[in-house]
Amino acid sequence: MPVVGVIGGGQLARMMIPPAVALGIELRVLAEAPDASARLAATAVGDYRDEATVLAFALECDVITFDHEHVPQAVLHALVATGSAVHPGPDALLYAQDKLMMRERLSQLGVPQPDWARVSSADELAGFLADHGGRAVVKTPRGGYDGKGVRMVSQAHEADDWLAEGPVLAEERVSFQRELAQLIARRPSGPTQVWPLVETVQRGGVCAEVIAPAPHVTDAVERAAAEIATTVANGVGVTGVLAVELFESTDGRVLVNELAMRPHNSGHVTIDGSITSQFEQHLRAVLDWPLGDTEPLAPWGVMINVFGELPPPAIAAALGHQPTVKVHAYGKGPREGRKAGHVTAIGDDLDETVYRARAAAAHFD
Amino acid sequence: MPVVGVIGGGQLARMMIPPAVALGIELRVLAEAPDASARLAATAVGDYRDEATVLAFALECDVITFDHEHVPQAVLHALVATGSAVHPGPDALLYAQDKLMMRERLSQLGVPQPDWARVSSADELAGFLADHGGRAVVKTPRGGYDGKGVRMVSQAHEADDWLAEGPVLAEERVSFQRELAQLIARRPSGPTQVWPLVETVQRGGVCAEVIAPAPHVTDAVERAAAEIATTVANGVGVTGVLAVELFESTDGRVLVNELAMRPHNSGHVTIDGSITSQFEQHLRAVLDWPLGDTEPLAPWGVMINVFGELPPPAIAAALGHQPTVKVHAYGKGPREGRKAGHVTAIGDDLDETVYRARAAAAHFD
Repeated sequence: MPVVGVIGGGQLARMMIPPAVALGIELRVLAEAPDASARLAATAVGDYRDEATVLAFALECDVITFDHEHVPQAVLHALVATGSAVHPGPDALLYAQDKLMMRERLSQLGVPQPDWARVSSADELAGFLADHGGRAVVKTPRGGYDGKGVRMVSQAHEADDWLAEGPVLAEERVSFQRELAQLIARRPSGPTQVWPLVETVQRGGVCAEVIAPAPHVTDAVERAAAEIATTVANGVGVTGVLAVELFESTDGRVLVNELAMRPHNSGHVTIDGSITSQFEQHLRAVLDWPLGDTEPLAPWGVMINVFGELPPPAIAAALGHQPTVKVHAYGKGPREGRKAGHVTAIGDDLDETVYRARAAAAHFD
Repeated sequence: MPVVGVIGGGQLARMMIPPAVALGIELRVLAEAPDASARLAATAVGDYRDEATVLAFALECDVITFDHEHVPQAVLHALVATGSAVHPGPDALLYAQDKLMMRERLSQLGVPQPDWARVSSADELAGFLADHGGRAVVKTPRGGYDGKGVRMVSQAHEADDWLAEGPVLAEERVSFQRELAQLIARRPSGPTQVWPLVETVQRGGVCAEVIAPAPHVTDAVERAAAEIATTVANGVGVTGVLAVELFESTDGRVLVNELAMRPHNSGHVTIDGSITSQFEQHLRAVLDWPLGDTEPLAPWGVMINVFGELPPPAIAAALGHQPTVKVHAYGKGPREGRKAGHVTAIGDDLDETVYRARAAAAHFD
């Protein structure tokens, strides 16, 4: 039985458990803590930044993959040096870890993206602002997620605290019609498979809802998104699932916002809405097994994130009120604002499907 | 987080893991051996016939349920006496454990079934044979499964070995058009929910294929099957999933063949083919949570059992050949003739769906 080791015990590792159970794959998780979301599959608890911990964990795994992109490059390279199959590998993960390197690489690949610059001083930021209508998005190259490490600026000194630590990424503030996400999986041997393009609705810099497929977009936008994801996956050598977060700008361009080299929040709708979920596909991809069909199970799928907590009585109430909706709880203790679960509805009519998903999610407000 | 304890670590317990992960339910398994199919969720290894072992296991579970029906009545009653919530309870399980008691109870409930008799001697068997055209099915009241403990007889002395141990069940040998199975779930508080009626195709006394919904049956047969299952579930007080195996006789009667009070092979097609799988529904039912919708995800679903083993290269080949088919491996070591997994295809056209499922299953021949 193939053994897949996952570094990180969050909800992404947790959601790999069901397809591993189905496919007869042994999943092992290196968790941060004994009560991690993926604790059921945890075979080790330790610090993913510690080389000895990670190497010991990897010893009896056929493939190593990830719940997050934070494993240091030195640890990743040590893994590769010991002969571990690491998917995605360090050279790909670099571009998910460092946003400045990501922008440089996408430029080399000719992938459409917002105007950007590496900015090392308030003076340089002033120049970038002057060239972009007096507004920009500034991002720390590393460590950001869910809106953290991202700041909208209109004054040259608004990023001084970050600039004291090193260069930052300045990006054109794109005027967009909507945000989209293109999910793709790629095997080490090369084949790729995309899912239908989805729309992601953000609130406060965090994904709130996903609609699959993205409504209102043209065929040209769908083709552009799939082409971008394929170019990035092949160009960067991603193995496993790659999520490309995109803007559809008001002037009709499709531009790369962010990359994630792992199953992604924008793909949770595939668990209940696709022939092959992103979690099953990720396992198949990192094992270099054939990829599954990504057709939707219904014309529409709607996923809504739940923050804070999902108390069991609320789960029961949601299931009772909406017997067609699927509820996913990540087994985390309550914490304000943290992603704690999601609900998914699928159906023939978009409005009705959105209604059912929201009606179920409302039980967790 | 609710804790559901499962006695028995076979594939049915294993297939409860994915919905438990989704719903934030903590699943604990009392397994027969450390390498049991459901080992991922095993929190104890021990003998389910040993009262102390079972009581200790149940101590920190909110609900106790089962992978099989073999837990002795004394142990079940001891569990209930200690205050455990046991679903299904001993009084219901009795009728899944003892085929003679089952036939008596179904007679009391007025449920249509084959002619039957409790037979204690070769003379009595001779009388039953004489009344039924010289042929009968003889079953040991306890311990039979997958064709074991079942014998087709035409001579009064063909069951002497079994009769030496005690009375047996003699049944009319029903001339049937097809075999059907009606799956239903029932909550302790009463509500029930059926899935669409399925056809089961047996080979050598063992289920080989399931087609959902059952093709060629009339609305009257569908209604009769649902009514029988509801009568049995309510009449016997089943909690959790109940599978009613049925004959559709050549003269158009719908007759109860067997009962199983747990998720059942005839319901595996619901994992990939229904809004709510039998395993999710079983967990919801035993927790007395609201039951989920049982609509199919496609017009047709076809499940084919795999016997012996599912070597990983064959799994990869099956997935590569049939990217729409779902493969389920039970994580068991190879053993001739043992159920080791199954494949499921869903689709709009029955012939084409059967083709894909069989093409995938052929990789395991």
